[in-house]
Amino acid sequence: MTDNKPGDIGLSPRLGSRKSYQKVNMDLIFLGTASAHPSPSRGVSGTVLRSEREAWLIDCGEGTQIQLMRSNVRPGRITKIFITHLHGDHSFGLPGLMCTLSAAFMDPDREGSIMHIYGPQGLRKYVRVSLELSRSELSYSYVVHELQVPDTEFPHDWETWKPSHEAEGSLHPNEKTGQAIFMTADGTYKLHEDDNFIIHAATISHRVPCFGYVFLEKPQPGRLDAEMLKARGIKPGPLYARIKAGHEIEAPDGSVIKPQDVVGPTRQGRKIVILGDTKESSRIIPIAMNADVLVHEATLADEHHDLCIGRGHSTPAMAGQFAAQIQCEHLVITHFSQRYYPLSHQGKEGDETVQKLLDQTRATFPGGKVTAAEDFLTISVPARR
Amino acid sequence: MTDNKPGDIGLSPRLGSRKSYQKVNMDLIFLGTASAHPSPSRGVSGTVLRSEREAWLIDCGEGTQIQLMRSNVRPGRITKIFITHLHGDHSFGLPGLMCTLSAAFMDPDREGSIMHIYGPQGLRKYVRVSLELSRSELSYSYVVHELQVPDTEFPHDWETWKPSHEAEGSLHPNEKTGQAIFMTADGTYKLHEDDNFIIHAATISHRVPCFGYVFLEKPQPGRLDAEMLKARGIKPGPLYARIKAGHEIEAPDGSVIKPQDVVGPTRQGRKIVILGDTKESSRIIPIAMNADVLVHEATLADEHHDLCIGRGHSTPAMAGQFAAQIQCEHLVITHFSQRYYPLSHQGKEGDETVQKLLDQTRATFPGGKVTAAEDFLTISVPARR
Repeated sequence: MTDNKPGDIGLSPRLGSRKSYQKVNMDLIFLGTASAHPSPSRGVSGTVLRSEREAWLIDCGEGTQIQLMRSNVRPGRITKIFITHLHGDHSFGLPGLMCTLSAAFMDPDREGSIMHIYGPQGLRKYVRVSLELSRSELSYSYVVHELQVPDTEFPHDWETWKPSHEAEGSLHPNEKTGQAIFMTADGTYKLHEDDNFIIHAATISHRVPCFGYVFLEKPQPGRLDAEMLKARGIKPGPLYARIKAGHEIEAPDGSVIKPQDVVGPTRQGRKIVILGDTKESSRIIPIAMNADVLVHEATLADEHHDLCIGRGHSTPAMAGQFAAQIQCEHLVITHFSQRYYPLSHQGKEGDETVQKLLDQTRATFPGGKVTAAEDFLTISVPARR
Repeated sequence: MTDNKPGDIGLSPRLGSRKSYQKVNMDLIFLGTASAHPSPSRGVSGTVLRSEREAWLIDCGEGTQIQLMRSNVRPGRITKIFITHLHGDHSFGLPGLMCTLSAAFMDPDREGSIMHIYGPQGLRKYVRVSLELSRSELSYSYVVHELQVPDTEFPHDWETWKPSHEAEGSLHPNEKTGQAIFMTADGTYKLHEDDNFIIHAATISHRVPCFGYVFLEKPQPGRLDAEMLKARGIKPGPLYARIKAGHEIEAPDGSVIKPQDVVGPTRQGRKIVILGDTKESSRIIPIAMNADVLVHEATLADEHHDLCIGRGHSTPAMAGQFAAQIQCEHLVITHFSQRYYPLSHQGKEGDETVQKLLDQTRATFPGGKVTAAEDFLTISVPARR
């Protein structure tokens, strides 16, 4: 991570100004696909969205740091963490990961950078109390930004058992003051914007306040016709960047080359939508439309619809219908009840596997691409044409 | 767990009055043997002391619940948890385990029982905050008892970064009011006593308040000479229990059988000593003497003595010397730095394995039995003769 290869594009603060002629690879890596609790065969929720130089972690259930070590994701690349909700299978791995990252962050590339953590109210207190009581000091700074929800998002029994959400007392020694992020007029949240990405969120319905996150890549410059440039005598170099940025350049024969001659049309950026646990997600639809990839839970099969909804979860049909509604390209289902064995399971007659959930999902998303996540599955998100 | 086999002896509250003619099996099962953080090949601290019907967990680092599932310990048997100190590699797995045990505790044998958790000040707050913010309700009740330490046990920088230890606000819905356990005049703590065990603790020196736990089995009735009883016409039954309890009984021929005729001498109970992280453990010596098994950390090899002590840990020599000092039967070393590969490692020349730590330990505990723990190692603790 200390030498910049030609294809690198900078997404981290220190490298933000770097551009590239090459496409940016983008991968989704599933570290855990179980609901409720980890098992020897499946981790709990943790998903990585990785670009060339940065990795963002969405949820961090217990054992996510171990799954991360087993994956090909470099822990030191993680610069942002997004927690969908505070249920333990999505959050109990966070303090341990933060401690272990102290070693990964000895990486000189990370010097001066801050780990940004986003999630529901109460997350700041959970992190601070865990790190303080364990007396964990870190080799880096962190900040927790809390998404504020209206009272309607709290469970019906909130008033009878109302935990205090406020992180009280002094900041942790490695903590920076975080923001309170409020819902905007359109009912969504804007979390972050840099040269390459805009990140939004919206509430979805579960048993506790819960979010879906939308990662929108900004429009990408059109492809450069390098062959034509070479034919007109211009070798790869700074002029390539100049014309790609929209400026006319002069060829060695004195003729003018206009951007529209050699640069293709601007391409839409990719959109990745990752939902937390949900029984109903309509509020995120406006910002989730036309996603390249949608990650949606499908905890229990369609025949357990009422039980599933009662626990705040989705069936395969619900996942498929939502994918169809937002007209996404590729639906990935995850967060499977332990009763469904992995696809590779060779068991006895009658054992149910994730294949059942996959089949039920496909039935409600005809023509769409559907994949069942499994631990360590990596999905490439291709650049738009 | 619903039918009582003849060899069962009751340690759980509901079965406390059951006695047995047979010896009680007692095992130590190591669920994690790594220091600092878990890795794909080693879990962090978690050790089970298992008797016939109950299992006690000592420390619960992140992922302990997964290691437990991989072991042959039945999660539903766990009735008490002891935390040596609040560093994350000894405590971050506790909230997740408590949630997952909600399923295991559907076991009817557990109805009405309470999970007792013992550990340093701050543990109650950590558990309460974690369970409240994640809004985790349990299928059983729990109680946290905190061992109070004198000011001298706090680290030198405690005043400059002083986390609040107090669990404020209401109890968690499944929480019972815990005790504050104070040091007695001899510098130790008494945690628990039942028909079969007395459990003590003492502080040991680490970077934060830290404890070692001593599990002392009460004296066991001598062995019954069943052959002699049968020869005198008495078949197995209630009379066996009566004479074992010290009463004379009458044989079918009218003669009197005295206990000393058929019951061997009372045997000493077993003593198991499990220490948390330590750089110095003299305060536990009085209650640790003559242990059957001592579990002692040995994080770094002898040549890293100063570094090791500086971090609050022990070298193999320190472990061996302590074992010799308390004249224990069997020393088990654990809590190994990631730099030492497991014993089974077949690597390149120069790779260091736990064998090195084992050899160094043996050199300082000549004639004593020494074992290096590894994940899932089970050690039987034989009854005393």
